[in-house]
Amino acid sequence: MRSAPLGFFDSGVGGLTVVRAAQQLLPHENIIYLGDTARVPYGSKSPQTIREFAAQDVEFLISHGVKAIVIACNTATAHALPTLRRKYKIPIVGVIESGVKAALSDPATDRVGIIATRGTIRSHAYQHALALKKTGILIHDQAAPLLVPLIEEDWLDHPATDSVLHTYLDPMVEKGIDALLLACTHYPLLIPKLKSFLPAEIRLVDSATTCAEDLKARLTKLDLLNASKKDGSLQIHLTDLSEQFEALAKRFLSRPPGKIRRAIL
Amino acid sequence: MRSAPLGFFDSGVGGLTVVRAAQQLLPHENIIYLGDTARVPYGSKSPQTIREFAAQDVEFLISHGVKAIVIACNTATAHALPTLRRKYKIPIVGVIESGVKAALSDPATDRVGIIATRGTIRSHAYQHALALKKTGILIHDQAAPLLVPLIEEDWLDHPATDSVLHTYLDPMVEKGIDALLLACTHYPLLIPKLKSFLPAEIRLVDSATTCAEDLKARLTKLDLLNASKKDGSLQIHLTDLSEQFEALAKRFLSRPPGKIRRAIL
Repeated sequence: MRSAPLGFFDSGVGGLTVVRAAQQLLPHENIIYLGDTARVPYGSKSPQTIREFAAQDVEFLISHGVKAIVIACNTATAHALPTLRRKYKIPIVGVIESGVKAALSDPATDRVGIIATRGTIRSHAYQHALALKKTGILIHDQAAPLLVPLIEEDWLDHPATDSVLHTYLDPMVEKGIDALLLACTHYPLLIPKLKSFLPAEIRLVDSATTCAEDLKARLTKLDLLNASKKDGSLQIHLTDLSEQFEALAKRFLSRPPGKIRRAIL
Repeated sequence: MRSAPLGFFDSGVGGLTVVRAAQQLLPHENIIYLGDTARVPYGSKSPQTIREFAAQDVEFLISHGVKAIVIACNTATAHALPTLRRKYKIPIVGVIESGVKAALSDPATDRVGIIATRGTIRSHAYQHALALKKTGILIHDQAAPLLVPLIEEDWLDHPATDSVLHTYLDPMVEKGIDALLLACTHYPLLIPKLKSFLPAEIRLVDSATTCAEDLKARLTKLDLLNASKKDGSLQIHLTDLSEQFEALAKRFLSRPPGKIRRAIL
Protein backbone atom coordinates (compact mmCIF):
# COMPACT_ATOMS: atom_id res chain seq x y z
CA MET A 1 0.00 0.00 0.00
CA ARG A 2 2.88 2.38 0.86
CA SER A 3 4.22 2.17 -2.68
CA ALA A 4 0.82 3.05 -4.20
CA PRO A 5 0.59 6.49 -5.78
CA LEU A 6 -1.04 9.60 -4.32
CA GLY A 7 -4.06 10.95 -6.22
CA PHE A 8 -4.58 14.68 -6.81
CA PHE A 9 -7.51 16.23 -8.60
CA ASP A 10 -8.61 19.69 -9.70
CA SER A 11 -11.15 21.15 -12.12
CA GLY A 12 -8.25 21.99 -14.42
CA VAL A 13 -4.50 22.47 -14.24
CA GLY A 14 -4.31 24.98 -11.35
CA GLY A 15 -3.97 22.09 -8.89
CA LEU A 16 -0.51 21.41 -10.31
CA THR A 17 0.73 24.22 -8.02
CA VAL A 18 -0.16 21.86 -5.13
CA VAL A 19 1.54 18.94 -6.90
CA ARG A 20 4.68 21.04 -7.25
CA ALA A 21 4.74 21.74 -3.50
CA ALA A 22 4.14 18.04 -2.75
CA GLN A 23 6.95 16.96 -5.08
CA GLN A 24 9.36 19.18 -3.16
CA LEU A 25 8.34 17.88 0.27
CA LEU A 26 7.66 14.24 -0.69
CA PRO A 27 10.12 13.58 -3.53
CA HIS A 28 9.76 9.77 -3.42
CA GLU A 29 5.99 9.64 -3.82
CA ASN A 30 4.42 8.68 -7.16
CA ILE A 31 1.59 10.99 -8.11
CA ILE A 32 -1.46 10.58 -10.35
CA TYR A 33 -3.08 13.91 -11.23
CA LEU A 34 -6.56 14.28 -12.71
CA GLY A 35 -7.60 17.62 -14.22
CA ASP A 36 -11.24 17.79 -15.31
CA THR A 37 -10.42 20.14 -18.18
CA ALA A 38 -13.48 19.05 -20.20
CA ARG A 39 -15.74 20.62 -17.56
CA VAL A 40 -13.48 23.36 -16.17
CA PRO A 41 -14.23 25.74 -14.46
CA TYR A 42 -16.00 24.43 -11.35
CA GLY A 43 -15.91 27.85 -9.65
CA SER A 44 -18.96 29.29 -11.41
CA LYS A 45 -21.12 26.17 -11.05
CA SER A 46 -23.65 25.06 -8.42
CA PRO A 47 -22.78 23.10 -5.24
CA GLN A 48 -24.75 20.05 -6.42
CA THR A 49 -22.93 19.88 -9.76
CA ILE A 50 -19.54 20.43 -8.10
CA ARG A 51 -20.22 17.56 -5.66
CA GLU A 52 -21.21 15.22 -8.50
CA PHE A 53 -18.10 16.08 -10.51
CA ALA A 54 -15.83 15.72 -7.46
CA ALA A 55 -17.25 12.26 -6.68
CA GLN A 56 -16.51 11.17 -10.27
CA ASP A 57 -12.97 12.53 -9.93
CA VAL A 58 -12.46 10.53 -6.71
CA GLU A 59 -13.80 7.34 -8.35
CA PHE A 60 -11.33 7.77 -11.20
CA LEU A 61 -8.39 8.09 -8.80
CA ILE A 62 -9.54 5.15 -6.65
CA SER A 63 -9.81 3.01 -9.80
CA HIS A 64 -6.13 3.88 -10.42
CA GLY A 65 -5.15 2.41 -7.04
CA VAL A 66 -4.17 5.53 -5.11
CA LYS A 67 -3.50 5.33 -1.36
CA ALA A 68 -4.73 8.84 -0.48
CA ILE A 69 -6.38 11.75 -2.27
CA VAL A 70 -5.64 15.47 -2.30
CA ILE A 71 -8.41 17.78 -3.49
CA ALA A 72 -6.10 20.33 -5.14
CA CYS A 73 -9.04 22.61 -5.91
CA ASN A 74 -10.50 25.17 -3.56
CA THR A 75 -14.00 25.10 -5.04
CA ALA A 76 -14.23 21.30 -4.83
CA THR A 77 -12.82 21.29 -1.28
CA ALA A 78 -15.31 23.98 -0.26
CA HIS A 79 -18.36 22.10 -1.52
CA ALA A 80 -17.47 18.44 -1.58
CA LEU A 81 -14.90 17.54 1.12
CA PRO A 82 -17.34 16.64 3.94
CA THR A 83 -19.54 14.56 1.58
CA LEU A 84 -16.54 12.78 0.05
CA ARG A 85 -15.10 11.92 3.46
CA ARG A 86 -18.43 10.40 4.50
CA LYS A 87 -18.71 8.44 1.25
CA TYR A 88 -15.17 7.06 0.83
CA LYS A 89 -12.85 5.36 3.34
CA ILE A 90 -9.64 6.51 1.63
CA PRO A 91 -7.82 9.41 3.38
CA ILE A 92 -8.76 12.72 1.71
CA VAL A 93 -6.90 16.00 2.24
CA GLY A 94 -8.31 19.35 1.09
CA VAL A 95 -6.70 22.75 0.63
CA ILE A 96 -8.90 24.85 2.90
CA GLU A 97 -7.71 23.75 6.35
CA SER A 98 -4.16 24.22 5.08
CA GLY A 99 -4.96 27.68 3.72
CA VAL A 100 -6.49 28.76 7.00
CA LYS A 101 -3.53 27.40 8.96
CA ALA A 102 -1.14 29.30 6.67
CA ALA A 103 -3.17 32.51 7.02
CA LEU A 104 -3.08 32.33 10.81
CA SER A 105 0.58 31.20 11.06
CA ASP A 106 1.49 34.74 12.16
CA PRO A 107 -0.33 35.25 15.48
CA ALA A 108 -0.57 39.00 14.82
CA THR A 109 -2.99 38.37 11.95
CA ASP A 110 -6.36 39.88 12.85
CA ARG A 111 -7.73 40.97 9.48
CA VAL A 112 -7.72 38.56 6.53
CA GLY A 113 -8.69 39.21 2.92
CA ILE A 114 -9.83 36.28 0.75
CA ILE A 115 -9.97 36.17 -3.04
CA ALA A 116 -11.39 33.10 -4.76
CA THR A 117 -13.88 31.88 -7.35
CA ARG A 118 -17.53 32.75 -6.89
CA GLY A 119 -18.25 29.15 -5.82
CA THR A 120 -15.59 29.16 -3.09
CA ILE A 121 -16.63 32.57 -1.72
CA ARG A 122 -20.33 31.58 -1.74
CA SER A 123 -19.59 28.35 0.15
CA HIS A 124 -18.35 30.38 3.17
CA ALA A 125 -15.99 27.46 3.83
CA TYR A 126 -12.92 29.68 4.36
CA GLN A 127 -14.83 32.32 6.29
CA HIS A 128 -16.25 29.62 8.58
CA ALA A 129 -12.92 27.85 9.09
CA LEU A 130 -11.16 31.16 9.89
CA ALA A 131 -13.86 32.20 12.35
CA LEU A 132 -13.64 28.82 14.14
CA LYS A 133 -9.88 29.12 14.50
CA LYS A 134 -9.66 32.70 15.71
CA THR A 135 -12.28 34.56 17.69
CA GLY A 136 -12.95 38.11 16.54
CA ILE A 137 -11.08 37.83 13.26
CA LEU A 138 -12.11 40.38 10.60
CA ILE A 139 -12.69 38.87 7.14
CA HIS A 140 -13.03 40.71 3.83
CA ASP A 141 -13.97 38.36 0.98
CA GLN A 142 -14.12 39.04 -2.73
CA ALA A 143 -15.20 36.75 -5.56
CA ALA A 144 -12.67 37.29 -8.35
CA PRO A 145 -13.99 35.32 -11.36
CA LEU A 146 -11.93 37.19 -13.97
CA LEU A 147 -8.55 36.27 -12.50
CA VAL A 148 -8.50 32.65 -13.74
CA PRO A 149 -9.19 33.62 -17.40
CA LEU A 150 -6.55 36.37 -17.21
CA ILE A 151 -3.98 33.94 -15.74
CA GLU A 152 -4.85 31.28 -18.35
CA GLU A 153 -4.41 33.88 -21.11
CA ASP A 154 -1.01 34.78 -19.57
CA TRP A 155 -2.11 38.43 -19.55
CA LEU A 156 -0.51 39.27 -16.20
CA ASP A 157 1.25 42.31 -17.69
CA HIS A 158 -1.82 43.52 -19.57
CA PRO A 159 -3.41 46.77 -18.31
CA ALA A 160 -6.74 44.91 -18.03
CA THR A 161 -5.25 42.78 -15.23
CA ASP A 162 -4.27 45.92 -13.29
CA SER A 163 -7.72 47.33 -13.79
CA VAL A 164 -9.40 44.11 -12.60
CA LEU A 165 -7.07 43.83 -9.59
CA HIS A 166 -7.85 47.43 -8.56
CA THR A 167 -11.56 46.66 -8.57
CA TYR A 168 -11.14 43.45 -6.58
CA LEU A 169 -8.45 44.56 -4.11
CA ASP A 170 -8.65 48.33 -3.53
CA PRO A 171 -11.72 48.08 -1.26
CA MET A 172 -10.07 45.51 1.03
CA VAL A 173 -6.76 47.37 1.08
CA GLU A 174 -8.64 50.53 2.11
CA LYS A 175 -10.46 48.69 4.89
CA GLY A 176 -7.13 47.23 6.03
CA ILE A 177 -5.92 43.60 5.93
CA ASP A 178 -2.85 41.91 7.42
CA ALA A 179 -2.88 38.95 5.02
CA LEU A 180 -4.42 38.10 1.66
CA LEU A 181 -5.46 34.48 1.23
CA LEU A 182 -5.08 33.30 -2.38
CA ALA A 183 -7.91 30.81 -2.20
CA CYS A 184 -7.66 29.37 -5.70
CA THR A 185 -4.89 27.10 -6.95
CA HIS A 186 -4.37 29.32 -10.01
CA TYR A 187 -3.43 32.36 -7.96
CA PRO A 188 0.16 31.47 -7.00
CA LEU A 189 1.02 32.56 -10.56
CA LEU A 190 -0.19 36.04 -9.57
CA ILE A 191 2.24 36.36 -6.64
CA PRO A 192 4.95 38.42 -8.42
CA LYS A 193 2.25 40.77 -9.74
CA LEU A 194 0.55 41.07 -6.34
CA LYS A 195 3.86 41.80 -4.60
CA SER A 196 4.32 44.91 -6.73
CA PHE A 197 0.64 45.78 -6.48
CA LEU A 198 -0.07 45.56 -2.74
CA PRO A 199 1.48 47.40 0.23
CA ALA A 200 4.53 45.43 1.45
CA GLU A 201 3.03 44.85 4.91
CA ILE A 202 0.24 42.64 3.51
CA ARG A 203 1.32 39.01 3.72
CA LEU A 204 0.40 36.81 0.73
CA VAL A 205 -0.81 33.35 1.72
CA ASP A 206 -1.35 30.36 -0.50
CA SER A 207 -2.28 26.88 0.63
CA ALA A 208 -0.01 24.78 -1.60
CA THR A 209 2.99 24.47 0.77
CA THR A 210 0.91 24.04 3.93
CA CYS A 211 -1.25 21.48 2.13
CA ALA A 212 1.86 19.47 1.23
CA GLU A 213 2.97 19.64 4.90
CA ASP A 214 -0.46 18.46 6.08
CA LEU A 215 -0.35 15.64 3.56
CA LYS A 216 3.07 14.53 4.78
CA ALA A 217 1.91 14.58 8.41
CA ARG A 218 -1.18 12.55 7.52
CA LEU A 219 0.79 9.96 5.54
CA THR A 220 3.34 9.67 8.36
CA LYS A 221 0.60 9.14 10.95
CA LEU A 222 -1.08 6.47 8.81
CA ASP A 223 2.26 4.82 8.00
CA LEU A 224 1.66 5.35 4.29
CA LEU A 225 4.91 7.07 3.25
CA ASN A 226 6.63 5.41 0.31
CA ALA A 227 9.73 3.54 1.52
CA SER A 228 11.43 3.80 -1.89
CA LYS A 229 14.32 6.22 -2.28
CA LYS A 230 13.80 6.65 -6.02
CA ASP A 231 12.45 9.87 -7.50
CA GLY A 232 8.67 9.70 -7.62
CA SER A 233 6.83 9.79 -10.95
CA LEU A 234 4.03 12.08 -12.09
CA GLN A 235 1.25 10.87 -14.36
CA ILE A 236 -1.14 13.55 -15.62
CA HIS A 237 -4.65 12.69 -16.85
CA LEU A 238 -6.91 15.39 -18.31
CA THR A 239 -10.53 14.91 -19.41
CA ASP A 240 -9.86 17.25 -22.35
CA LEU A 241 -6.53 17.52 -24.11
CA SER A 242 -5.67 20.80 -25.76
CA GLU A 243 -2.45 22.64 -26.57
CA GLN A 244 -3.52 25.40 -24.23
CA PHE A 245 -3.78 23.04 -21.22
CA GLU A 246 -0.44 21.41 -22.01
CA ALA A 247 1.22 24.83 -22.19
CA LEU A 248 -0.46 25.85 -18.94
CA ALA A 249 0.61 22.63 -17.22
CA LYS A 250 4.21 23.55 -17.96
CA ARG A 251 3.75 26.99 -16.39
CA PHE A 252 2.28 25.45 -13.23
CA LEU A 253 4.97 22.78 -12.72
CA SER A 254 8.69 23.15 -12.12
CA ARG A 255 9.57 19.92 -14.04
CA PRO A 256 8.34 18.92 -17.53
CA PRO A 257 4.93 17.21 -17.20
CA GLY A 258 5.77 14.24 -19.46
CA LYS A 259 3.13 12.52 -21.58
CA ILE A 260 -0.38 13.73 -20.75
CA ARG A 261 -3.20 11.16 -21.10
CA ARG A 262 -6.89 11.67 -21.79
CA ALA A 263 -9.17 10.47 -18.99
CA ILE A 264 -12.75 9.28 -19.53
CA LEU A 265 -14.84 9.74 -16.37
CA MET B 1 -44.84 16.53 -36.60
CA ARG B 2 -45.54 20.20 -37.41
CA SER B 3 -46.70 20.85 -33.86
CA ALA B 4 -43.54 19.34 -32.36
CA PRO B 5 -41.13 21.80 -30.73
CA LEU B 6 -37.90 23.16 -32.17
CA GLY B 7 -34.73 22.23 -30.28
CA PHE B 8 -31.93 24.75 -29.64
CA PHE B 9 -28.69 24.04 -27.83
CA ASP B 10 -25.64 25.97 -26.72
CA SER B 11 -22.75 25.43 -24.30
CA GLY B 12 -24.44 27.92 -21.98
CA VAL B 13 -27.02 30.68 -22.12
CA GLY B 14 -25.57 32.79 -24.98
CA GLY B 15 -27.65 30.81 -27.48
CA LEU B 16 -30.75 32.48 -26.04
CA THR B 17 -29.91 35.47 -28.29
CA VAL B 18 -30.72 33.13 -31.22
CA VAL B 19 -33.90 31.95 -29.47
CA ARG B 20 -34.98 35.57 -29.09
CA ALA B 21 -34.55 36.20 -32.82
CA ALA B 22 -36.46 32.98 -33.63
CA GLN B 23 -39.31 33.92 -31.28
CA GLN B 24 -39.74 37.20 -33.17
CA LEU B 25 -39.78 35.59 -36.61
CA LEU B 26 -41.59 32.34 -35.71
CA PRO B 27 -43.91 33.39 -32.87
CA HIS B 28 -46.07 30.23 -32.99
CA GLU B 29 -43.26 27.71 -32.62
CA ASN B 30 -42.68 25.93 -29.32
CA ILE B 31 -39.02 25.86 -28.35
CA ILE B 32 -36.97 23.57 -26.14
CA TYR B 33 -33.60 25.06 -25.21
CA LEU B 34 -30.69 23.10 -23.75
CA GLY B 35 -27.76 24.99 -22.21
CA ASP B 36 -24.85 22.76 -21.14
CA THR B 37 -23.99 25.06 -18.23
CA ALA B 38 -22.35 22.23 -16.25
CA ARG B 39 -19.58 22.01 -18.88
CA VAL B 40 -19.55 25.59 -20.22
CA PRO B 41 -17.47 26.96 -21.91
CA TYR B 42 -16.93 24.84 -25.04
CA GLY B 43 -14.81 27.56 -26.70
CA SER B 44 -11.55 26.68 -24.96
CA LYS B 45 -11.89 22.90 -25.36
CA SER B 46 -10.66 20.45 -27.99
CA PRO B 47 -12.56 19.53 -31.19
CA GLN B 48 -13.02 15.92 -30.05
CA THR B 49 -14.53 16.93 -26.71
CA ILE B 50 -16.77 19.54 -28.35
CA ARG B 51 -18.08 16.93 -30.82
CA GLU B 52 -18.82 14.47 -28.00
CA PHE B 53 -20.66 17.09 -25.98
CA ALA B 54 -22.64 18.32 -29.03
CA ALA B 55 -23.77 14.75 -29.85
CA GLN B 56 -25.05 14.35 -26.26
CA ASP B 57 -26.89 17.68 -26.58
CA VAL B 58 -28.54 16.51 -29.82
CA GLU B 59 -29.56 13.19 -28.22
CA PHE B 60 -31.20 15.08 -25.35
CA LEU B 61 -33.25 17.24 -27.74
CA ILE B 62 -34.25 14.26 -29.93
CA SER B 63 -35.42 12.41 -26.80
CA HIS B 64 -37.68 15.43 -26.16
CA GLY B 65 -39.38 14.97 -29.55
CA VAL B 66 -38.10 18.02 -31.44
CA LYS B 67 -38.73 18.33 -35.21
CA ALA B 68 -35.53 20.26 -36.04
CA ILE B 69 -32.41 21.40 -34.21
CA VAL B 70 -30.59 24.73 -34.13
CA ILE B 71 -26.99 24.71 -32.92
CA ALA B 72 -27.12 28.12 -31.25
CA CYS B 73 -23.41 27.99 -30.47
CA ASN B 74 -20.63 29.03 -32.80
CA THR B 75 -18.01 26.71 -31.33
CA ALA B 76 -20.28 23.66 -31.60
CA THR B 77 -21.35 24.61 -35.13
CA ALA B 78 -17.72 25.08 -36.14
CA HIS B 79 -16.58 21.67 -34.92
CA ALA B 80 -19.62 19.42 -34.88
CA LEU B 81 -22.15 20.42 -37.58
CA PRO B 82 -20.85 18.18 -40.41
CA THR B 83 -20.50 15.15 -38.08
CA LEU B 84 -23.94 15.70 -36.55
CA ARG B 85 -25.60 16.01 -39.99
CA ARG B 86 -24.02 12.70 -41.03
CA LYS B 87 -25.06 10.97 -37.81
CA TYR B 88 -28.66 12.19 -37.41
CA LYS B 89 -31.52 12.43 -39.92
CA ILE B 90 -33.25 15.35 -38.18
CA PRO B 91 -32.79 18.77 -39.91
CA ILE B 92 -29.96 20.67 -38.20
CA VAL B 93 -29.28 24.39 -38.68
CA GLY B 94 -26.04 26.04 -37.50
CA VAL B 95 -25.11 29.67 -37.00
CA ILE B 96 -22.06 29.89 -39.26
CA GLU B 97 -23.66 29.85 -42.72
CA SER B 98 -26.09 32.48 -41.43
CA GLY B 99 -23.28 34.61 -40.03
CA VAL B 100 -21.38 34.49 -43.30
CA LYS B 101 -24.51 35.37 -45.27
CA ALA B 102 -25.13 38.33 -42.95
CA ALA B 103 -21.52 39.49 -43.27
CA LEU B 104 -21.70 39.45 -47.06
CA SER B 105 -25.22 40.93 -47.29
CA ASP B 106 -23.65 44.25 -48.35
CA PRO B 107 -21.91 43.52 -51.70
CA ALA B 108 -19.33 46.24 -50.97
CA THR B 109 -17.89 44.15 -48.12
CA ASP B 110 -14.32 43.15 -49.02
CA ARG B 111 -12.60 43.08 -45.64
CA VAL B 112 -14.16 41.21 -42.72
CA GLY B 113 -13.00 41.03 -39.10
CA ILE B 114 -14.03 38.04 -36.99
CA ILE B 115 -13.99 37.82 -33.20
CA ALA B 116 -14.87 34.53 -31.52
CA THR B 117 -13.76 31.98 -28.93
CA ARG B 118 -10.42 30.30 -29.41
CA GLY B 119 -12.17 27.09 -30.54
CA THR B 120 -14.18 28.85 -33.24
CA ILE B 121 -11.20 30.79 -34.58
CA ARG B 122 -9.01 27.67 -34.58
CA SER B 123 -11.61 25.67 -36.51
CA HIS B 124 -11.25 28.07 -39.50
CA ALA B 125 -14.94 27.35 -40.18
CA TYR B 126 -15.86 31.02 -40.67
CA GLN B 127 -12.71 31.85 -42.59
CA HIS B 128 -13.33 28.90 -44.91
CA ALA B 129 -17.03 29.68 -45.44
CA LEU B 130 -16.26 33.35 -46.20
CA ALA B 131 -13.51 32.45 -48.65
CA LEU B 132 -15.83 30.02 -50.46
CA LYS B 133 -18.53 32.65 -50.83
CA LYS B 134 -16.39 35.57 -51.98
CA THR B 135 -13.18 35.33 -53.95
CA GLY B 136 -10.40 37.60 -52.76
CA ILE B 137 -12.02 38.56 -49.47
CA LEU B 138 -9.62 39.82 -46.78
CA ILE B 139 -10.14 38.27 -43.35
CA HIS B 140 -8.72 39.41 -40.02
CA ASP B 141 -9.51 36.98 -37.20
CA GLN B 142 -8.98 37.35 -33.49
CA ALA B 143 -9.63 34.87 -30.69
CA ALA B 144 -11.23 36.88 -27.88
CA PRO B 145 -11.49 34.49 -24.90
CA LEU B 146 -11.88 37.21 -22.26
CA LEU B 147 -15.07 38.70 -23.72
CA VAL B 148 -17.42 35.94 -22.52
CA PRO B 149 -16.28 36.20 -18.87
CA LEU B 150 -16.56 40.02 -19.01
CA ILE B 151 -20.08 39.80 -20.49
CA GLU B 152 -21.10 37.19 -17.93
CA GLU B 153 -19.80 39.43 -15.14
CA ASP B 154 -21.82 42.32 -16.66
CA TRP B 155 -18.64 44.41 -16.63
CA LEU B 156 -19.29 46.13 -19.97
CA ASP B 157 -18.71 49.57 -18.45
CA HIS B 158 -15.59 48.52 -16.56
CA PRO B 159 -12.28 49.99 -17.79
CA ALA B 160 -10.94 46.42 -18.11
CA THR B 161 -13.42 45.78 -20.93
CA ASP B 162 -12.16 48.83 -22.82
CA SER B 163 -8.61 47.71 -22.32
CA VAL B 164 -9.38 44.18 -23.55
CA LEU B 165 -11.33 45.48 -26.57
CA HIS B 166 -8.43 47.75 -27.55
CA THR B 167 -6.07 44.78 -27.56
CA TYR B 168 -8.45 42.62 -29.59
CA LEU B 169 -9.80 45.22 -32.03
CA ASP B 170 -7.23 47.99 -32.57
CA PRO B 171 -5.00 45.86 -34.86
CA MET B 172 -7.91 44.97 -37.17
CA VAL B 173 -9.26 48.53 -37.20
CA GLU B 174 -5.79 49.75 -38.18
CA LYS B 175 -5.57 47.20 -40.99
CA GLY B 176 -9.06 48.24 -42.12
CA ILE B 177 -12.30 46.24 -42.05
CA ASP B 178 -15.75 46.91 -43.55
CA ALA B 179 -17.63 44.59 -41.20
CA LEU B 180 -16.99 42.92 -37.86
CA LEU B 181 -18.52 39.46 -37.46
CA LEU B 182 -19.58 38.76 -33.87
CA ALA B 183 -19.00 35.03 -34.09
CA CYS B 184 -20.14 34.06 -30.59
CA THR B 185 -23.72 34.09 -29.37
CA HIS B 186 -22.72 36.08 -26.28
CA TYR B 187 -21.47 39.03 -28.29
CA PRO B 188 -24.80 40.67 -29.25
CA LEU B 189 -24.76 42.02 -25.68
CA LEU B 190 -21.60 43.92 -26.63
CA ILE B 191 -23.24 45.76 -29.54
CA PRO B 192 -24.01 49.08 -27.74
CA LYS B 193 -20.44 49.12 -26.40
CA LEU B 194 -18.92 48.30 -29.81
CA LYS B 195 -20.99 51.01 -31.53
CA SER B 196 -19.37 53.66 -29.36
CA PHE B 197 -15.99 51.97 -29.62
CA LEU B 198 -15.56 51.38 -33.36
CA PRO B 199 -15.56 53.82 -36.31
CA ALA B 200 -19.17 54.28 -37.53
CA GLU B 201 -18.36 52.89 -41.00
CA ILE B 202 -17.64 49.40 -39.64
CA ARG B 203 -20.82 47.33 -39.87
CA LEU B 204 -21.51 45.01 -36.92
CA VAL B 205 -22.79 41.61 -37.95
CA ASP B 206 -24.33 38.93 -35.77
CA SER B 207 -25.84 35.68 -36.94
CA ALA B 208 -28.95 35.51 -34.71
CA THR B 209 -31.44 37.22 -37.06
CA THR B 210 -30.10 35.58 -40.25
CA CYS B 211 -30.09 32.21 -38.49
CA ALA B 212 -33.78 32.66 -37.60
CA GLU B 213 -34.50 33.54 -41.25
CA ASP B 214 -32.64 30.45 -42.47
CA LEU B 215 -34.53 28.33 -39.97
CA LYS B 216 -37.86 29.70 -41.19
CA ALA B 217 -36.93 29.04 -44.83
CA ARG B 218 -35.86 25.49 -43.97
CA LEU B 219 -39.05 24.72 -42.00
CA THR B 220 -41.18 26.19 -44.82
CA LYS B 221 -39.42 24.05 -47.42
CA LEU B 222 -39.83 20.90 -45.32
CA ASP B 223 -43.46 21.78 -44.52
CA LEU B 224 -42.67 21.75 -40.81
CA LEU B 225 -44.05 25.14 -39.72
CA ASN B 226 -46.44 24.94 -36.78
CA ALA B 227 -50.03 25.52 -38.01
CA SER B 228 -51.18 26.74 -34.58
CA LYS B 229 -51.87 30.47 -34.17
CA LYS B 230 -51.20 30.42 -30.42
CA ASP B 231 -48.07 31.99 -28.92
CA GLY B 232 -45.31 29.43 -28.83
CA SER B 233 -43.84 28.27 -25.51
CA LEU B 234 -40.23 28.22 -24.36
CA GLN B 235 -38.87 25.47 -22.11
CA ILE B 236 -35.32 25.98 -20.82
CA HIS B 237 -33.19 23.06 -19.62
CA LEU B 238 -29.74 23.66 -18.14
CA THR B 239 -27.27 20.97 -17.07
CA ASP B 240 -26.29 23.15 -14.10
CA LEU B 241 -28.68 25.47 -12.32
CA SER B 242 -27.25 28.53 -10.62
CA GLU B 243 -28.54 32.00 -9.77
CA GLN B 244 -25.94 33.46 -12.11
CA PHE B 245 -27.24 31.53 -15.13
CA GLU B 246 -30.85 32.40 -14.34
CA ALA B 247 -29.95 36.09 -14.12
CA LEU B 248 -27.98 35.82 -17.38
CA ALA B 249 -30.87 34.06 -19.13
CA LYS B 250 -33.03 37.09 -18.34
CA ARG B 251 -30.47 39.44 -19.89
CA PHE B 252 -30.32 37.34 -23.07
CA LEU B 253 -34.08 37.01 -23.58
CA SER B 254 -36.72 39.69 -24.16
CA ARG B 255 -39.45 37.77 -22.28
CA PRO B 256 -39.17 36.17 -18.80
CA PRO B 257 -37.65 32.68 -19.17
CA GLY B 258 -40.21 30.90 -16.95
CA LYS B 259 -39.27 27.87 -14.86
CA ILE B 260 -35.81 26.56 -15.70
CA ARG B 261 -35.30 22.79 -15.40
CA ARG B 262 -32.16 20.79 -14.71
CA ALA B 263 -31.16 18.43 -17.53
CA ILE B 264 -29.18 15.22 -17.02
CA LEU B 265 -27.28 14.29 -20.19
